[in-house]
Amino acid sequence: MTETMTVDAGVLAARVTAALRAAGASAESAAATTEALMYASRIGVDSHGVRLAAHYAAMLRQGRLNPIPVLTTRRTAAATAVLDADDGLGHFACYRAMELAVGIAAESGLGAVGIVRSSHCGAAGAYALKAAEAGMIGIVTSNSDANVAPFEGAVPFHGTNPIAMAAPVAGQQPWLLDLATSSIPFNRVRLYRSLNRPLPAGVAADAQGRPTTDAHAAEMLLPLGGPDYGFKGAGLAGMVTILSAVLTGATTDPHMIPMTETDDRSTARNVGQFCLAIDPARFVGRAAYEAAMADYLGLLRQVPSTGDSRPVMAPGDREWETARHRARDGIPIDPDTRRFLGL
Amino acid sequence: MTETMTVDAGVLAARVTAALRAAGASAESAAATTEALMYASRIGVDSHGVRLAAHYAAMLRQGRLNPIPVLTTRRTAAATAVLDADDGLGHFACYRAMELAVGIAAESGLGAVGIVRSSHCGAAGAYALKAAEAGMIGIVTSNSDANVAPFEGAVPFHGTNPIAMAAPVAGQQPWLLDLATSSIPFNRVRLYRSLNRPLPAGVAADAQGRPTTDAHAAEMLLPLGGPDYGFKGAGLAGMVTILSAVLTGATTDPHMIPMTETDDRSTARNVGQFCLAIDPARFVGRAAYEAAMADYLGLLRQVPSTGDSRPVMAPGDREWETARHRARDGIPIDPDTRRFLGL
Repeated sequence: MTETMTVDAGVLAARVTAALRAAGASAESAAATTEALMYASRIGVDSHGVRLAAHYAAMLRQGRLNPIPVLTTRRTAAATAVLDADDGLGHFACYRAMELAVGIAAESGLGAVGIVRSSHCGAAGAYALKAAEAGMIGIVTSNSDANVAPFEGAVPFHGTNPIAMAAPVAGQQPWLLDLATSSIPFNRVRLYRSLNRPLPAGVAADAQGRPTTDAHAAEMLLPLGGPDYGFKGAGLAGMVTILSAVLTGATTDPHMIPMTETDDRSTARNVGQFCLAIDPARFVGRAAYEAAMADYLGLLRQVPSTGDSRPVMAPGDREWETARHRARDGIPIDPDTRRFLGL
Repeated sequence: MTETMTVDAGVLAARVTAALRAAGASAESAAATTEALMYASRIGVDSHGVRLAAHYAAMLRQGRLNPIPVLTTRRTAAATAVLDADDGLGHFACYRAMELAVGIAAESGLGAVGIVRSSHCGAAGAYALKAAEAGMIGIVTSNSDANVAPFEGAVPFHGTNPIAMAAPVAGQQPWLLDLATSSIPFNRVRLYRSLNRPLPAGVAADAQGRPTTDAHAAEMLLPLGGPDYGFKGAGLAGMVTILSAVLTGATTDPHMIPMTETDDRSTARNVGQFCLAIDPARFVGRAAYEAAMADYLGLLRQVPSTGDSRPVMAPGDREWETARHRARDGIPIDPDTRRFLGL
């Protein structure tokens, strides 16, 4: 990777915003997308980081994304609301939805906002984190276009459908989970094709749905759990589809226009998201919650490790460590993104 | 299995109730536990079915379980409540909590009830199903005593920590997911020991936390995803612990008295559960939800199957099929349970 350079976060964020603005994005949607991409790039989730700016800029220019969306929210009950994202950038909708969910939860103990007419939202953890920063547990799901087989199925049906959750930890960075319900993302298959490397067993299938380790033969992903226990990953993918799309009125995965593998870059995709905030103060109470969380995480991090060099980690520990390194050393940028951002 | 017999559901339920009543359980807690055990036995989840009646009866007699619990609920906000289960049978607490959550959701769009001082609740899907039968999406989690290693950890830390979700389907049985966040339950290890059979790869570890297929060497389970992707299953287990115990004030998994592998049968375990109900009417609306759900499930069941003989199934399809068979043929009962129930 001799062509990788690192860039200071402030410089990088300004370039991302400028690129999105140049593609027509409104100031507020460009700011939200920049924040979400920088979140992912800071914590080391480069697949969902600033490299996506070029894709979003193309979609803004070619009509799939509404560059100047007007978000419409409707409060439907004491604990619920719906948000119409007006086919704009999904990050903008998700930040606003979680902000609303947190406000509702402060009143009602829980708040959930269902989002329709949205688009790709990057790393779902970005929005769960917002809840944790406000002292709430946040849960976010997003559906996506079909590239994961159902259990024992022979065509792609569900998206990689992430589940993210963040929980506040007093005096520490939040507990932070963000996982696709497949074992790997499809980009990993493309990477292994280009490297001519075999895939791990049980993560992908050929055109007939048969498990394969041949990256060139792989046509779809298998759900988390693989050929034996993939009914669990497939079930979780379905949970995400139901919460994000069936419940909200968004397009379900098998009907959704692909994010990248399509010539249609002018039709909106109507992705759905679901954001839930939970206020610990309305359950055991804030002080008891904080004490229990500190005890739980302390015990987890003391578990003897089977890895030679690293301790057992809680979800998010690795990401926060990466964020500390990148705050010091800058954020590594691949050559294509570097060119796109003029760095 | 020449010693297996089948029993009519009505006869079986009466025997289970009588056994629990004979062990001191109040009429309402015996009724709730019978309903939950019969639910699992009807749908073929025999590990969580009527075979557990003998265990519960012993715990009622030996003091771990309060036979005559007085449930206390406290509404804490428009969408939230807490329920103190008074160390009684977990099934009683979970049915009451989900009933309350559904009532709250009917008013507020969402309802969540956190349960403390509870105990083993059998199959978490039983309570999620109650929400679906009331037209709501139900989600239930329960923590449990430690027998699953964290990712790259060398001691058991999390319970098998189930996540259950049920979603209503107009004119059909609900979509119904109920999964442990480990690949297999620890009982499977015991079964394979007795059969002298090797375990599948990637589901269990030896005393040093190293993956093993030797059932005799297996000392703990690995999280869903196994040695490569177990950080996902471990993260989901943590999600369950946080929602069920940290949020509610219940005992976290590593501190919890084992359900079976202990001589302590007189101390209450303070298991925690979390029940959430979501009203589709407050999101896309009931009619649109029902249409989208029917379309989604129709497409899923039409996916070409890689299995020779069976179609692709939605979560719950296999269970509802079993329930139809067992309604006709009776419920198979193992010899120990048969003796315990006097059948």
